Amino acid sequence: MKNIFSKSRVETFSDGIFAIIITLLVLEIKVPHIDDPLSSKNLLDALLALLPKFVSWIISFFTIAVIWVNHHKLFEQFKILDRGIFWWNAVLLLWTTFIPFPTAVLGDYPSNFLSGVFYGLVMSLMAASFSLMRFYVIRKKELLEGNVNLDLFKRGTLMSVLFGPLMYLSGIVLGFIHPWLSFAVYLGIPVYFVFSETHE
Amino acid sequence: MKNIFSKSRVETFSDGIFAIIITLLVLEIKVPHIDDPLSSKNLLDALLALLPKFVSWIISFFTIAVIWVNHHKLFEQFKILDRGIFWWNAVLLLWTTFIPFPTAVLGDYPSNFLSGVFYGLVMSLMAASFSLMRFYVIRKKELLEGNVNLDLFKRGTLMSVLFGPLMYLSGIVLGFIHPWLSFAVYLGIPVYFVFSETHE
Amino acid sequence: MKNIFSKSRVETFSDGIFAIIITLLVLEIKVPHIDDPLSSKNLLDALLALLPKFVSWIISFFTIAVIWVNHHKLFEQFKILDRGIFWWNAVLLLWTTFIPFPTAVLGDYPSNFLSGVFYGLVMSLMAASFSLMRFYVIRKKELLEGNVNLDLFKRGTLMSVLFGPLMYLSGIVLGFIHPWLSFAVYLGIPVYFVFSETHE
Amino acid sequence: MKNIFSKSRVETFSDGIFAIIITLLVLEIKVPHIDDPLSSKNLLDALLALLPKFVSWIISFFTIAVIWVNHHKLFEQFKILDRGIFWWNAVLLLWTTFIPFPTAVLGDYPSNFLSGVFYGLVMSLMAASFSLMRFYVIRKKELLEGNVNLDLFKRGTLMSVLFGPLMYLSGIVLGFIHPWLSFAVYLGIPVYFVFSETHE
Repeated sequence: MKNIFSKSRVETFSDGIFAIIITLLVLEIKVPHIDDPLSSKNLLDALLALLPKFVSWIISFFTIAVIWVNHHKLFEQFKILDRGIFWWNAVLLLWTTFIPFPTAVLGDYPSNFLSGVFYGLVMSLMAASFSLMRFYVIRKKELLEGNVNLDLFKRGTLMSVLFGPLMYLSGIVLGFIHPWLSFAVYLGIPVYFVFSETHE
Repeated sequence: MKNIFSKSRVETFSDGIFAIIITLLVLEIKVPHIDDPLSSKNLLDALLALLPKFVSWIISFFTIAVIWVNHHKLFEQFKILDRGIFWWNAVLLLWTTFIPFPTAVLGDYPSNFLSGVFYGLVMSLMAASFSLMRFYVIRKKELLEGNVNLDLFKRGTLMSVLFGPLMYLSGIVLGFIHPWLSFAVYLGIPVYFVFSETHE
Repeated sequence: MKNIFSKSRVETFSDGIFAIIITLLVLEIKVPHIDDPLSSKNLLDALLALLPKFVSWIISFFTIAVIWVNHHKLFEQFKILDRGIFWWNAVLLLWTTFIPFPTAVLGDYPSNFLSGVFYGLVMSLMAASFSLMRFYVIRKKELLEGNVNLDLFKRGTLMSVLFGPLMYLSGIVLGFIHPWLSFAVYLGIPVYFVFSETHE
Repeated sequence: MKNIFSKSRVETFSDGIFAIIITLLVLEIKVPHIDDPLSSKNLLDALLALLPKFVSWIISFFTIAVIWVNHHKLFEQFKILDRGIFWWNAVLLLWTTFIPFPTAVLGDYPSNFLSGVFYGLVMSLMAASFSLMRFYVIRKKELLEGNVNLDLFKRGTLMSVLFGPLMYLSGIVLGFIHPWLSFAVYLGIPVYFVFSETHE
């Protein structure tokens, strides 16, 4: 059938992209210039000034790890990859490969209201791609593995909307009160997934 | 037989390169410098000024995704990889790994006539490598899988010339009228492939 | 069972990250600017001035190769990957992907006391992640392959603390005497592993 | 046996590194700054001034493709990977991952005598790692596949010295006459391999 993609080749391709993105993030943290190369004090101050970049890097690192896990779990439930899934997956990868840029903007301008909005917007577009891929598959049930419970899959789809795009949008709204509230939500989302993963 | 390459190892190597290239593209978009780090207005203006870079990034992203799909479909039809295919594939990879550079030039100088020409030229060289690989295999039919219809393969080869290098060259020519017409063609080519893929 | 990760997919993901990190390191070495582009003398001086960067690059290269080997040997002993191992592995990868940054800091400020401390700190956090993953598995023996000798595994865990985080911390302390002593320890750790590997 | 590495995992790791390096090369070519963003003439001049960078990029691209092919052919002849092969392979990868740096130096200072020497030196160290790995295996014949003809393998080893490190050293020496002679040799080596591959 012409309409089918090799599932393992698409998974390997996506995994490769996740591995590269999670690794490239650190390239956005540049070595600071200090006036006196021998002064520990100067270097300490310069490293401390990079703290927002370290924080935004860690948030994005765990976010991408969670994307990887969720991608893993979602694709396990697909029996066949048609072109629709392929291109929804491409949209998900588009937003995922973009993550280093809003991460760097957030790290450079942590107290700027708009950098938090921008980060949350990209993340909610990424998360929405997951949900849209799920909605697409709900309409084409024959793509799902036989052992998938459709009711559970539908409920998981609603949860993916709630804990994905909606949560990120709420992070944006909280930024109107204080930029750091957005930070907290963006960190909270992967942490929630890490802990709900581990202690389930 | 010394003349044969492991098909799966060449595919994995090529897939790895496609995954890396599609991910590296975003590194060409640098965080803008703004005068007042706290001003949302400043950051908004700076992000809007990056719009041509976002557009050229999205065009190249989907172009590389389409290259990946076409590579996938073409290699499925090969039974044996000889050194000729290997080196035509290397030429294809050469132009593909080059894509981040013309993409960045196009994003930095979107209204410069030459940046559109340069982008189209690199893309038509990349697309021509596909066609040349197909012509090579037509002359060495024993490399094709038994279930490949040679007439269909020949027709596909002509189509690959038409929708590949020729289309990109027409994009270059349209740039003589207005640079943005080139943009439209370069975006149209992967979009055409995406939709002809999905709604076939 | 929902609690289980595909071991081969996690290994491939980790291997991908190690391959990318070991390759990205060199990007932190920038081509020097020289006043007279034709002067061999100028270029020689500029390249010699990069010597600390070359040394820190080589140290980190072999350190990551050793991480890869140790990861390889550790994962061979796991029968099942549960979420705990997955997230300890993510923490290990977090510190590993960070390595290019302290490497570049060390290369730029080789005589600054703090850059040696910073490098050693990141490395001891990376090494501690290995030990913590081992301690986690000791408490959940059912994750280990049947042929693993638990006493040997426990002894290996103590050795991993000794030759990992403790050794790096001793490198930090020696930096109080002279920065280059830290260098020597950081180079000595992977060299020790290379030789204990080869001549065992 | 503790002394053995998974051949497929080491090959995948090495292939990943080759794929990344061949792709990263292009990152060293930066978008030129031009005074008038709308002037085609300015952009053309700026792109033409990058010609030495394009040439050094293409040389290194095909050199790494040839490294990949030779690595492929060499590892096919190994039955077992012991720690000795592993670490000789690591040394080969060290020099291979370094290639983007001398490539960029050569592209930036094409007429500087020393940049040609530096490029040739790194390449001959890379090529020597291949030969040294072969010499190591000649002394430990039990690592070779049963169908490998030892006499042919020994002759191949001598050829690898001749067409590898010695050829690169001769390129360095020719640079004393004119820098561009070095260029010609460095380009000639992969071209020779490409053609001896294809027309054998």
